[in-house]
Amino acid sequence: MSDLKLSSIPSANRSDCDFPLNNLPYGVFSTGGSERLCGVAIGDFILDATRLEADGILRASDTREVMTEGVWNSFMTLGKATWASYRDSLTKLLSSDADPERLQPYLMPLSEAILYMPLRVSEFTDFYASHHHATNVGTMFRGTENALPPNWLHMPIGYNGRASSVVVSETPVIRPRGQVKELQEATPRVAASGRFDFELELGAIVGQPSDGPIGVAEAFENIFGYVLLNDWSARDIQAWEYQPLGPFQSKATATTISPWIVTAEALEPFRTATPNREVPLLPYLQDPDPMLYDVSLEVGLAPEGYKETTLTRTNARELYYSAAQQLAHHASSGCPMRVGDLLGSGTISGPKQGSQGSLLELSWGGEQPVSLATGETRAFLMDGDTVTFRGHASGNGYRIGFGTCRGKILAAGH
Amino acid sequence: MSDLKLSSIPSANRSDCDFPLNNLPYGVFSTGGSERLCGVAIGDFILDATRLEADGILRASDTREVMTEGVWNSFMTLGKATWASYRDSLTKLLSSDADPERLQPYLMPLSEAILYMPLRVSEFTDFYASHHHATNVGTMFRGTENALPPNWLHMPIGYNGRASSVVVSETPVIRPRGQVKELQEATPRVAASGRFDFELELGAIVGQPSDGPIGVAEAFENIFGYVLLNDWSARDIQAWEYQPLGPFQSKATATTISPWIVTAEALEPFRTATPNREVPLLPYLQDPDPMLYDVSLEVGLAPEGYKETTLTRTNARELYYSAAQQLAHHASSGCPMRVGDLLGSGTISGPKQGSQGSLLELSWGGEQPVSLATGETRAFLMDGDTVTFRGHASGNGYRIGFGTCRGKILAAGH
Repeated sequence: MSDLKLSSIPSANRSDCDFPLNNLPYGVFSTGGSERLCGVAIGDFILDATRLEADGILRASDTREVMTEGVWNSFMTLGKATWASYRDSLTKLLSSDADPERLQPYLMPLSEAILYMPLRVSEFTDFYASHHHATNVGTMFRGTENALPPNWLHMPIGYNGRASSVVVSETPVIRPRGQVKELQEATPRVAASGRFDFELELGAIVGQPSDGPIGVAEAFENIFGYVLLNDWSARDIQAWEYQPLGPFQSKATATTISPWIVTAEALEPFRTATPNREVPLLPYLQDPDPMLYDVSLEVGLAPEGYKETTLTRTNARELYYSAAQQLAHHASSGCPMRVGDLLGSGTISGPKQGSQGSLLELSWGGEQPVSLATGETRAFLMDGDTVTFRGHASGNGYRIGFGTCRGKILAAGH
Repeated sequence: MSDLKLSSIPSANRSDCDFPLNNLPYGVFSTGGSERLCGVAIGDFILDATRLEADGILRASDTREVMTEGVWNSFMTLGKATWASYRDSLTKLLSSDADPERLQPYLMPLSEAILYMPLRVSEFTDFYASHHHATNVGTMFRGTENALPPNWLHMPIGYNGRASSVVVSETPVIRPRGQVKELQEATPRVAASGRFDFELELGAIVGQPSDGPIGVAEAFENIFGYVLLNDWSARDIQAWEYQPLGPFQSKATATTISPWIVTAEALEPFRTATPNREVPLLPYLQDPDPMLYDVSLEVGLAPEGYKETTLTRTNARELYYSAAQQLAHHASSGCPMRVGDLLGSGTISGPKQGSQGSLLELSWGGEQPVSLATGETRAFLMDGDTVTFRGHASGNGYRIGFGTCRGKILAAGH
């Protein structure tokens, strides 16, 4: 277990701060102007990486500027050695040994910043890698006998989602309308989704391209970092549409990500092994090292005007497949992978009540609504509800925090 | 039925020419240099639209150059009125009334050009809109009783594909390796696909963005044009992976498109109605006008070193859903659609033997291999096979051709 690195920014040294010197996550911000700037979260501040580059104080590349586009994609293309050397330079610049005066013009209070998408998402893929989640959902959709699909223990199954619908935390989410059909109805109708739900996931960001099959170890090296990810899901639309081609419009309304990319480097001390395999994996999916992360996760729900109730507490180590295994599988048919591809882990559910990553599971298909601190109950999300994800890895006297991933549900349009 | 417009380029006036003045499809080419240029096919030539713009002879926008990127995306963003006025200007420039001398420096022989992707694909979606295809495949995968999924007659079902795997005609296709499992096998293994197949489709290109639900009429207006599309499919990988989340690596090796975008304007005289509805559609999917096109399609297969056998003859009017209906459905949940989105129609199969758009159907799951002119037979594709799609709409003494969509199968890697 590694120790806190002391920063010249006092707020970064608090043990409950999401953004100590050990973290240094990458985001995009503005302070009201139209320009989108690349920034690094440190304590209660954002360090303006775009202006540091423009002023020649901290450059990632000797030959070109990579912070001018208002996303981190160009930086990611520079590759793993540069990711490491840039992080080293940042660490020196912000350490308690360095002169804090020099950085003053480049530090903005986090509380005054507007945060934007930290990357341009190339393509978005969503997986299904939690054993408990797959078993729970399979039981509800297909019965106990067919709960876990026959392929599930052999490959990290997934489906392609819509990159255009990925939004940053705090973006409101409009309840979708779509085709629904109750079992007793003869034909479908169009309605506002009555079973709108969240899905608690980690998102892995591909930082290096590949063109052809790659091994799990190479896939691990190609992953730049991680975000919290909420794959909003309309369960009633999903139930009617998903056979035989998979989820489509039920998952296309929005997917919310947290604004800070926590790098694989920052999470390095928190690597942990996937659970024991129930059946052996084929060689191309075997992980040579621990490739999951020990990251505590929680979900809070706040009805309009009321305080939040924590619904879920779980951990990313509950996943059966790592992002590296998912990426290796994704590339196995020769599928080219690109910088900026976003891979959702799939909903992360633990084994116990209160550790499931969706309302579908928490309320068991709506049959056992969960209680809120307000005295209300929820089977699925109501208009005005705000859902907040939080996550962090715990070090010695510090944490690697993800910040928040938050969205408020607005009423469906007409 | 409209008549041939006479061009100053004699080869464009032949009745069997794919690219008469009535067509004017958009592509991207080079003549050996590294620069990718936007071009318009006319007879046996390509008109260099990038240099016409640079020289100020034909500009799509008064305020900026849109042909400098080597793709047609920027042009598409200008919108339908500009699409029409640019096409009018091109038509005048290339008509038999105009002076052909002036254009000489801008005309390159088609036979000497290398063709590239005509657009940067934002995202790729594949639908399943042919009644005969869905019934055939459903029968083979799920039996006669469950052939047509319950939702099929109510919505144009589809799934998101991989934009990164879309390639232009003439790009070789490497046979994928992936997880397969025969019914009698206890566990899966990794193998080169033994059931690699083509899928005959039309691809619709979204030329205007939308953000929220749109009607079918608006969706029709947002479609810029069409290409031939081959959604290469590994049937054995597909059978093992596709439940419950849909096709994934079985469709991610490559999708080939023809190099010329045939505009919706060029196809306007060939609009035809969707077939009679077997059950009424919900209002958001009802088409106010004919929105399919009467486009003859054929598939040829040539083993390495041998001449081609035509396997399939069919027509795009066999589709049950139009691209406009698919786009309206795609946007129905609020999914943002972007310039450069590519929508595959789904495999186009007619009712008769020899009119099916895949080997899976032609050979009925491999049980009845088709005969080639060489004396060989094919259940699925062999290494060295070249598959060529062709398509055209037939006017009075002319045709609106799509050119060819071609790919050769290379042996799987190790």
